[in-house]
Amino acid sequence: MARIVMKFGGTSVAGLERIRNVARRVQKEVEDGNEVAVVVSAMSGETDRLVGFCREAAPLYDPAEYDAVVSSGEQVTSGLLAIVLKSMGVKARSWFGWQIPIHTTDAYANSRIESIDTERLIKAMSSKEVAVVAGFQGVSDEGRVTTLGRGGSDTSAVALAAALDADRCDIYTDVDGVYTTDPRIVSRARRLDRVTYEEMLELASVGAKVLQTRSVGLAMKAKTRLRVLSSFGDPDLSPEGGTLIVSEDEIKENTMERQIITGIAYDKSEAKVTLTGVPDKPGAVAQIFSLLADANIHVDMIVQIAYEGHITDVTFTVPKAQLSQVLDILEKGKEKIGFQKALKNDNVCKVSIVGVGMRSHPGVAATMFDALAKRGINILAITTSEIKVSVLIDDAYTELAVRVLHTAYGLDADNKPVEEAIA
Amino acid sequence: MARIVMKFGGTSVAGLERIRNVARRVQKEVEDGNEVAVVVSAMSGETDRLVGFCREAAPLYDPAEYDAVVSSGEQVTSGLLAIVLKSMGVKARSWFGWQIPIHTTDAYANSRIESIDTERLIKAMSSKEVAVVAGFQGVSDEGRVTTLGRGGSDTSAVALAAALDADRCDIYTDVDGVYTTDPRIVSRARRLDRVTYEEMLELASVGAKVLQTRSVGLAMKAKTRLRVLSSFGDPDLSPEGGTLIVSEDEIKENTMERQIITGIAYDKSEAKVTLTGVPDKPGAVAQIFSLLADANIHVDMIVQIAYEGHITDVTFTVPKAQLSQVLDILEKGKEKIGFQKALKNDNVCKVSIVGVGMRSHPGVAATMFDALAKRGINILAITTSEIKVSVLIDDAYTELAVRVLHTAYGLDADNKPVEEAIA
Repeated sequence: MARIVMKFGGTSVAGLERIRNVARRVQKEVEDGNEVAVVVSAMSGETDRLVGFCREAAPLYDPAEYDAVVSSGEQVTSGLLAIVLKSMGVKARSWFGWQIPIHTTDAYANSRIESIDTERLIKAMSSKEVAVVAGFQGVSDEGRVTTLGRGGSDTSAVALAAALDADRCDIYTDVDGVYTTDPRIVSRARRLDRVTYEEMLELASVGAKVLQTRSVGLAMKAKTRLRVLSSFGDPDLSPEGGTLIVSEDEIKENTMERQIITGIAYDKSEAKVTLTGVPDKPGAVAQIFSLLADANIHVDMIVQIAYEGHITDVTFTVPKAQLSQVLDILEKGKEKIGFQKALKNDNVCKVSIVGVGMRSHPGVAATMFDALAKRGINILAITTSEIKVSVLIDDAYTELAVRVLHTAYGLDADNKPVEEAIA
Repeated sequence: MARIVMKFGGTSVAGLERIRNVARRVQKEVEDGNEVAVVVSAMSGETDRLVGFCREAAPLYDPAEYDAVVSSGEQVTSGLLAIVLKSMGVKARSWFGWQIPIHTTDAYANSRIESIDTERLIKAMSSKEVAVVAGFQGVSDEGRVTTLGRGGSDTSAVALAAALDADRCDIYTDVDGVYTTDPRIVSRARRLDRVTYEEMLELASVGAKVLQTRSVGLAMKAKTRLRVLSSFGDPDLSPEGGTLIVSEDEIKENTMERQIITGIAYDKSEAKVTLTGVPDKPGAVAQIFSLLADANIHVDMIVQIAYEGHITDVTFTVPKAQLSQVLDILEKGKEKIGFQKALKNDNVCKVSIVGVGMRSHPGVAATMFDALAKRGINILAITTSEIKVSVLIDDAYTELAVRVLHTAYGLDADNKPVEEAIA
């Protein structure tokens, strides 16, 4: 007997036919003797419809009322799944955030889970009643409905798995796992059997959209074994494939040999800004970033090139959506900072190699720079973390760069040499 | 300053444009210095959509889960109206049944309100915050969402008005009041300025679909002043027309002269059953109706015609929807009852005259029978109450009968003689 949390996203519950397939998968887990909690999203398209209503009601809608409106989507799905399960003879009931309750902060529309009272859920589950939990929602101290931000149902599932001390948390979605890179770019991308929390965090935040970043961080903290699976295919068969997201220790125990690099990600959401002729003296550069920090602008990559004399160029990246705001702030601070020109470029892409293996292989970045140089791809900026190296390039070269790196690190499904892979 | 409850039905909140009109009406009441609670239905079509999901999920859906699903419609409307009000600078917040809370029985899908905790609502309303209440829903003792049955938002509004000791309860709908009869049949039907609770109950239960019957009974018990108004038209002007539903005393105080008959209603939902050759002895007829009562069949009109000898014919009406069930029950009890034949007729219509004035005018039924006889309309059965006379006729004569009676009792807008009115 195991205690498991299953989570089904919007495409997996889009319509009654798919909800019936979900119910069949849940029934199988119950028949296997497991205690089951299921977290469901709104049917795909439903949250967009409800958000559209709110925007139509008022562009600057009240966030607490937004939560009152949009949380209804998950409510509907949880009730429907419970109806289907009961009609199949499986004991089940729906649970809303306020019924469990799932306590959150009162930052409406973007709340964080503070605690989950599991007593009633555990009692129900141990009597073999499936708990069908509406994802994405909780309740504030003042007793109003809150939501966790888009994609929040992943967080609901992981937080619930942690609170229930579940043996695993299965995230069913419309892909069958986490890939070495985007299969739409590299046809020979491989599904990963196992990936560490840390790698998943880097892969998620640089563009792989399988899991909400926050939920991965939460799973890492609580050591919750996560599995990403496809909800499609025959519900009477065990789902094929899947990716386990676990701790590094567990990876080491289970994998004899492992690639140094786990995956290649890319992200086109950032723009590059270059300030020329910044005085090369203490505090001048700090001035730039404190101005941006005051405006809550997240600066990602930073490169400083010093010339002969007493001036320097400073290059950095910011979210594209905030680019005009950034240029405005810089213009206003021009005298204070003392730069000559502010140049912008929003045709850039950040390409990253991710892998815990690089900790023990210092030469890994050199391979990246070398592979890109051979293809004539210019590197505009570099950042590194313990398990990631990111480079900023002209976005026209995105697909080429991803394919070249995928091959260079031996990630291709059939491992052909670079020349053939990119032909 | 008055404390008022406003209720808006599905057509009145069908889409953001209409919700904005509703908000404007609410704003006017606030500007007039009133404390306001607004009860809203789901957008028109929304409850049907959600009920459709439940039926598709399982024909015999779990009623508690049905409530979890369908209650979401009112949740959405209350949130959206609160958003619009706040964007107009009117203090407002949405309230769901469980938040107030509105305590109900646990008869899911058809619950009854037991009590309403008004403390928090009153506190909010007295600080000039409009309470936007999701209609149709409450919460059971075990903390699950309940619903009050179709049309239940009227009941929510009246119960809330009673609990808040409101000065009045305004029911906004897609008609501008209660009419002397169906205006689609009689073009000269008149809107009634005032009608008593008792009359409204009879009018509602015999076919006028303006208000849910239960809500009228509740208003009568709590002596809540009800007003039926149209939500259409210019929201910046006071709504024209409207019908007040009040106690008989208030009617007497306000009306010098009054028609004996207040309105004419009709109802095609019943079928007639005749059992021939029933033994004319004590207990035989009782046998019939106890069998039907055991099956929870509501029998309305009953006529017994005794012949020479020891047999009798018994005629009665039952809901059309239950006709085949009724015939089945009778067939199984044939020997026990001892009748010869069971004849059915589902082409019948019940036409009723309603009015508190008939208490003091004993000849009122004779006028009805006479007017129908003159037009050659055969009466198949008769029932009476203190303020109502109903006749069962061939449904082909429905429109004719309603028009004839409307004229005979002087209800026509321009009060022309019968002959002209039905020409």
